[in-house]
Amino acid sequence: MIETDILIIGAGPTGLFTVFEAGLLKLKCHIIDGLPQPGGQLTELYPKKPIFDIPGFPSVGAGDLVDNLMEQIKQFQPGFTLNEVAETIDKLDDGTFIVTTNKGTKHHAKAVAIAAGLGSFEPRKPQLEKLSYYEDKGIEYFVKDPEVFRDKRVVIAGGGDSALDWTIYLADIAKEVSLVHRRNEFRGALDSVEKVQKLKDSGKIHLVTPAEVVDLKGDDTLDGVIIEREGEHEIIDCDYFIPLFGLTPKLGPIANWGLEIEKNAIKVNNALDYQTNIEGVYAIGDINTYPGKLKLILCGFHEATLMCQSVYNRLNPGKKYVLKYTTVSGINGFDGSRKEAEKAVVKSID
Amino acid sequence: MIETDILIIGAGPTGLFTVFEAGLLKLKCHIIDGLPQPGGQLTELYPKKPIFDIPGFPSVGAGDLVDNLMEQIKQFQPGFTLNEVAETIDKLDDGTFIVTTNKGTKHHAKAVAIAAGLGSFEPRKPQLEKLSYYEDKGIEYFVKDPEVFRDKRVVIAGGGDSALDWTIYLADIAKEVSLVHRRNEFRGALDSVEKVQKLKDSGKIHLVTPAEVVDLKGDDTLDGVIIEREGEHEIIDCDYFIPLFGLTPKLGPIANWGLEIEKNAIKVNNALDYQTNIEGVYAIGDINTYPGKLKLILCGFHEATLMCQSVYNRLNPGKKYVLKYTTVSGINGFDGSRKEAEKAVVKSID
Ligand SMILES: Cc1cc2nc3c(=O)[nH]c(=O)nc-3n(C[C@H](O)[C@H](O)[C@H](O)COP(=O)(O)OP(=O)(O)OC[C@H]3O[C@@H](n4cnc5c(N)ncnc54)[C@H](O)[C@@H]3O)c2cc1C
Ligand SMILES: Cc1cc2nc3c(=O)[nH]c(=O)nc-3n(C[C@H](O)[C@H](O)[C@H](O)COP(=O)(O)OP(=O)(O)OC[C@H]3O[C@@H](n4cnc5c(N)ncnc54)[C@H](O)[C@@H]3O)c2cc1C
Repeated sequence: MIETDILIIGAGPTGLFTVFEAGLLKLKCHIIDGLPQPGGQLTELYPKKPIFDIPGFPSVGAGDLVDNLMEQIKQFQPGFTLNEVAETIDKLDDGTFIVTTNKGTKHHAKAVAIAAGLGSFEPRKPQLEKLSYYEDKGIEYFVKDPEVFRDKRVVIAGGGDSALDWTIYLADIAKEVSLVHRRNEFRGALDSVEKVQKLKDSGKIHLVTPAEVVDLKGDDTLDGVIIEREGEHEIIDCDYFIPLFGLTPKLGPIANWGLEIEKNAIKVNNALDYQTNIEGVYAIGDINTYPGKLKLILCGFHEATLMCQSVYNRLNPGKKYVLKYTTVSGINGFDGSRKEAEKAVVKSID
Repeated sequence: MIETDILIIGAGPTGLFTVFEAGLLKLKCHIIDGLPQPGGQLTELYPKKPIFDIPGFPSVGAGDLVDNLMEQIKQFQPGFTLNEVAETIDKLDDGTFIVTTNKGTKHHAKAVAIAAGLGSFEPRKPQLEKLSYYEDKGIEYFVKDPEVFRDKRVVIAGGGDSALDWTIYLADIAKEVSLVHRRNEFRGALDSVEKVQKLKDSGKIHLVTPAEVVDLKGDDTLDGVIIEREGEHEIIDCDYFIPLFGLTPKLGPIANWGLEIEKNAIKVNNALDYQTNIEGVYAIGDINTYPGKLKLILCGFHEATLMCQSVYNRLNPGKKYVLKYTTVSGINGFDGSRKEAEKAVVKSID
């Protein structure tokens, strides 16, 4: 059982910054995310794009912003349960919570901050009859560990950046890589498209376009895909089929937690502390809704900050909190580090 | 008469960022501030200190944050009325406002955003009988234009960074600089204290410690100060006396605008748009109060953003606003500049 003060569901910018604000209040955090890496939409959907509306950054790459946030919270040593989706929540008699993931990992927390963005990311799946049968038996929607594919025959499908990037990456690792796409045109970084062109020209990969995977074969596990190209069917023998058609966020299991939901978002008390209808459960960032709500990164930061204060007050009833400026009081990290502004000297002149 | 969409009172971080969010919505802004420079508390009180709780900055100097914000809003070409304090507000029949400063400058705006922080900064004044008589006749509380002091005899009083910094600066410009301080000890950057020691050692300034200015003299204008040092009185002849005992913010004229005030702050509707009890007048940043309010820079950013949306809706009734991400839609600056994320290419591989 993982023990923490605040359990954060979602490692997007809102969830990450929560660790910082909680840390200032000496509250320990643990984060669950269904994706293999932190950063939420920024890392998953647009890591290389600039954002122009983060206060104080005339422009910042989405991936860089996530790196900065990770650096900022490091000192508070958050725990992470990645690659797992928070599935159930139970409120205990003492007002604390147990949250369990799809892989059975249990987390015990004094408060829960749902910072789940647009929901958990699920792969867009191709419409193939035997698809679910072959899942975990040769079909993968993510490349979590590239080593799995060493010396294997791999078919990748898709026409975007993920399909291009993994084709390039696995070309060096796998025994054979085939890239199947409905069109001849790919949509991605110029550099990636050119690299794939070179790999094709040098015979390092098979480019199969315009074509579509229409069927799957194999007795126990997958041993090939059937593609249709210009009306003709062909078999490509393979050990793995990786359809990379993008990820879409779905509210997912949280929808069944007894929270008030409106337009796929969780209603919160924005007049006070972004608490949901369940006491001790907060919703911050893109996942929440209230009159005037804007789904922007900077709004999540504010919501996280007010929420942490509310958690602090809830856990320390009667204790009066005095706001301390980081500039004045510095920061004591949980890792024992201390950040402090240079103090003025008091020195006589004679 | 200065014409604008949103008149912002206060050029602190909240006021500055408002220009950006307004600009995204094609609303033009003008800012009034009583200080000679933008940045509010950050520039006036702690320009060289690091702040640790701005999201995405593990550490940022207060002055640097202000520079970044100025850079971020440049494209939207805000107007500035600096060195003037907003004194009166009048609501016209058409729901627009006229705000007049202490120097009589008039501003006509469709909405007013009070981002006045802790209020307008006023100098802490020494308790001297004839003080107000000599104001503008030899007594200055700010060094707005150092050239005023060229070849003049100047007495500076104070023991902090401002007194040290201006002593150093004016040593090269004025004919004579005397620094008067109650104690031998100064509180400031080590570097500044050491510089003043050197100036004293080389006879470039007079250091008068421990001493206090106890009286002022001069017929029409100031021509000297009387100091008390160890029980003895002395006269220092001078053209200017600059007491630098720090600035304190006072709510000031805004207190009389008919706004609901609670603990020196303006009550706002935090459940919606940070509007005050006067329709069309908003209060954002440190100047406002609501349940759970935290006087933090990052909170002002969020409040400014929601406020701009509310102004937009008020000025464009019936027009449905669709949130556009800067990453996706880029930014069109009022100066004709365009910032845009690199687009993905669509390119065939053959
Ligand atoms: C293309 C694009 C451009 C954008 N540009 C801008 C911009 O310029 N400015 C701006 O302010 N905003 C922009 N946004 C919006 C911005 O990305 C979001 O506001 C931001 O990501 C919200 O952060 P968050 O932390 O609330 O949620 P998210 O970033 O969505 O993170 C939520 C995380 O929660 C996880 N999760 C959800 N449910 C579960 C569960 N049950 N178990 C485990 N994990 C779960 C998800 O996997 C995800 O990682 C843009 C969005 C897109 C798609
Ligand atoms: C020493 C110190 C350390 C701090 N450290 C931190 C920190 O680490 N993190 C953090 O988040 N916050 C910190 N703060 C608080 C932070 O500075 C404030 O939250 C922030 O400055 C508020 O911004 P603002 O724009 O709302 O107001 P301000 O920065 O106060 O700016 C308001 C401006 O309005 C002007 N003004 C007021 N009335 C009028 C008028 N009638 N006419 C014309 N102009 C007017 C003033 O001159 C001023 O320039 C610190 C504050 C201090 C003093």
